[in-house]
Amino acid sequence: MSEKITPQSQDFSRWYHDVILQAKLADYSPVKGCMVIRPNGYAIWERIQKELDRRIKATGTRNAYFPLFIPESFIKKEENHVVVFAPQCAVVTHGGGKELEEKLYVRPTSETIINSMFAKWIQSYRDLPLLINQWANVVRWEMRTRLFLRTTEFLWQEGHTCHETLDEAEQLSKTMLNIYADFSQEVLAMPTIKGLKSESEKFAGALRTYCIEAMMQDKKALQAGTSHNLSDHFAKVFGTKFLNKEGKEKFVYQTSWGVSTRLIGGLVMSHSDDKGLVLPPRLAPLHVVIIPILGKILGKNDQNKSRVLEVSEKLQKTLQEHDQKVRLPYTLSVAIDKDETKQAGWKFYEYELLGVPLRIELGPRDLEKNHIVLVRRDTGKKEFVSINEAPQKVIKELEAMQNDLFLKASAFRDNNIFDVESYDEFCSQITSQGGFYRSSWCQSNECEQKVKENTKATIRCITLDKNLDVVKSDKPCLVCKKKAGNVECLFAISY
Amino acid sequence: MSEKITPQSQDFSRWYHDVILQAKLADYSPVKGCMVIRPNGYAIWERIQKELDRRIKATGTRNAYFPLFIPESFIKKEENHVVVFAPQCAVVTHGGGKELEEKLYVRPTSETIINSMFAKWIQSYRDLPLLINQWANVVRWEMRTRLFLRTTEFLWQEGHTCHETLDEAEQLSKTMLNIYADFSQEVLAMPTIKGLKSESEKFAGALRTYCIEAMMQDKKALQAGTSHNLSDHFAKVFGTKFLNKEGKEKFVYQTSWGVSTRLIGGLVMSHSDDKGLVLPPRLAPLHVVIIPILGKILGKNDQNKSRVLEVSEKLQKTLQEHDQKVRLPYTLSVAIDKDETKQAGWKFYEYELLGVPLRIELGPRDLEKNHIVLVRRDTGKKEFVSINEAPQKVIKELEAMQNDLFLKASAFRDNNIFDVESYDEFCSQITSQGGFYRSSWCQSNECEQKVKENTKATIRCITLDKNLDVVKSDKPCLVCKKKAGNVECLFAISY
Repeated sequence: MSEKITPQSQDFSRWYHDVILQAKLADYSPVKGCMVIRPNGYAIWERIQKELDRRIKATGTRNAYFPLFIPESFIKKEENHVVVFAPQCAVVTHGGGKELEEKLYVRPTSETIINSMFAKWIQSYRDLPLLINQWANVVRWEMRTRLFLRTTEFLWQEGHTCHETLDEAEQLSKTMLNIYADFSQEVLAMPTIKGLKSESEKFAGALRTYCIEAMMQDKKALQAGTSHNLSDHFAKVFGTKFLNKEGKEKFVYQTSWGVSTRLIGGLVMSHSDDKGLVLPPRLAPLHVVIIPILGKILGKNDQNKSRVLEVSEKLQKTLQEHDQKVRLPYTLSVAIDKDETKQAGWKFYEYELLGVPLRIELGPRDLEKNHIVLVRRDTGKKEFVSINEAPQKVIKELEAMQNDLFLKASAFRDNNIFDVESYDEFCSQITSQGGFYRSSWCQSNECEQKVKENTKATIRCITLDKNLDVVKSDKPCLVCKKKAGNVECLFAISY
Repeated sequence: MSEKITPQSQDFSRWYHDVILQAKLADYSPVKGCMVIRPNGYAIWERIQKELDRRIKATGTRNAYFPLFIPESFIKKEENHVVVFAPQCAVVTHGGGKELEEKLYVRPTSETIINSMFAKWIQSYRDLPLLINQWANVVRWEMRTRLFLRTTEFLWQEGHTCHETLDEAEQLSKTMLNIYADFSQEVLAMPTIKGLKSESEKFAGALRTYCIEAMMQDKKALQAGTSHNLSDHFAKVFGTKFLNKEGKEKFVYQTSWGVSTRLIGGLVMSHSDDKGLVLPPRLAPLHVVIIPILGKILGKNDQNKSRVLEVSEKLQKTLQEHDQKVRLPYTLSVAIDKDETKQAGWKFYEYELLGVPLRIELGPRDLEKNHIVLVRRDTGKKEFVSINEAPQKVIKELEAMQNDLFLKASAFRDNNIFDVESYDEFCSQITSQGGFYRSSWCQSNECEQKVKENTKATIRCITLDKNLDVVKSDKPCLVCKKKAGNVECLFAISY
């Protein structure tokens, strides 16, 4: 290993970028603020797409594709939307060699262009609900970028739905929040907290923004997904109307919701370590690598060598066949690294760097004992397993690893959420040791801004109960000590 | 059916657009030249992606993602590339509220930006071959647009590969051509002719462009996919070099290849008819619709009604279970239309318009006789099938339909390819009845241009033999009658 990963404890940000660059997930591009997603990173995105797309479609949502370009006049129609998004946009002024009559904005999000189509497609209540999703690239000009977390162009899915009533839109936005949280837990093994954004942090043009927030290993917060109840704000400016059952013309109520390639950044910062990437098995493009130990027998004993390779290949086949019997939620992928120009030790490091969940070592002495050496990426635990029992053991360890990663991240998160009532204690503690701070808030913009100025922390979300209703608080506001009408919220420094 | 489809014989172009709009495959957008791909159309694109992606990956190619924006200086580096593509580009001049120092072009194709990364990633022959594919949107400014066939923004895949030798690049470009042709035949049921583009029609920057050309039902040609041998043209201007086994620095040899959402246009013009869309089963998002005949029994005999619905549901389940036994190359999708506000006759038209391959009608009288009525979308053939035999019969008819669509399109194409030697005859025949014209060509630009001016036809391709080598001709050139050094080629009017 000529190149190294900066230890996490030494410099978290450098560690993060080292892992991504060394594991070849992404690279910097010559276009300012834009990254290249390399095959190792894109394979993870494909797994995310597949798992999430299935869940989105199960709600009756269908995929479609809308134009990349949005006429300037559209962006300007919704008053809150234009203030936030217009300054972030890339603007096309010339096309086909000529200056355009109207400037085109590269989509930062598609509520406006999609509403112009919804207004055309929707006539009556029979056309509702309309549930549409789009997998696309979007562009938001960023001055300070970080691979996966904040890039000028990124990939995402954006859902857009229309409903007869505000209540139905509210329900749908909560349904999608649950889907994101479940997906994050079950697939990314990343625990999240479901919450409601404060007025100052909500989506520009929304009535209400729900979010999932995750804690990274440096105890900072990552907003991992959002789901907006748009009420009829966009419908009103785009004239998205329907005739209801009573024959009256009404505006539709809408939602929009999205997650992006940012999830890959969250994944890295949730599980990876100083050796490199750690991937939950449900997302790993490759689950098991078999490394035949040939080094010492090379040239000396060709019979041993061919026997090791033969058993390796048989094991690969057995593992893949076994997968078909047990019906994992993914197709088990098993590789053998037969490259004789590399030492086994070099390969161990390499596949640890790449985050392959399980490594199998198999040499002539293992063959004699009819066992393999099985090594788990997350714990580094080594185990001797008889060859016959390998298929069952591999599946068991993959499932255990998926589960253990979630439990470990959950425990870490829970150990770093603190209840606070004293503002001074809060300020000193968040600065010295980070973490999430649960406290009471009077819902005033003043108190929210004061925290930001004093500590750089923001309200990540107002906390929700099991029904996704806001949790009221009868404690005094953390900042101003006012007692009435407070809610519980989480403060943290975020990405 | 309040809205109608213009008969194909009356106006092919209006028929084409009527089918697309009525079947809700796509719609015009408020952004000039850009279309919206609606859920019915996008579902077809998802099937195309899934089938093609699998074939591309089987070659060892891996997916990645490169930036949407290309710095102006990159586009200008390859001299042929800039002349063709720069005038077609959408140009971003402002970002984040400021004028940019260097203009950014929205990618019309990604050879340039990708080479800037390849140059960084490739060091030695050990890094080769490098096989990368990208699913993305691209923008080429178009003055006259047609849904799916020619739009300012479209979706595609673009493969980009690097090799040690020119010969290896040539082989890869031919491999991809074969994959496109096989995919087109097996999945789209669209026969194509593999060929080589003339110098004037090849990709800007390529040494050689291979293509597949299909004949539409109006006898015009559609270029359905291209595969380019780029030689070291882009490598030289971007410095994409490697150390070969002898330790010498060499430029890599490259290919690029792509197909786009244009394939959906080709699909429509290959198989559809005056009733609407006809979809090959391997691409259809929905394969079978069961229509319970409830009209006459409504309210009168609820027992009959619930019995019809019960048997319909059981049949749906049986069909889906049977699918798991026979292992079709797709997951059989079966729907029941229980909507009681619509007449059965209205539904028949609706599902014909949408191109569902098989319709099953099931009413009380059918139940008495223990049979269903099975109707094939392409032939309109009605058959009584006993309920027990329905699962086998459905699979059989789907497979037959997939095959028959290909055979029908092939026969139509073959009947409209003509061998010509007389230039006058050619000019009058191509104008009066269209079709493809196989003839001898001296390879001069003059003769090629003369045909274009006289007939609007272009050389679709130089024909290839089974090994994909150019077919020489010893006949006189169709235009100038010169005899030596001729090749066989196909002339046609194209989209």
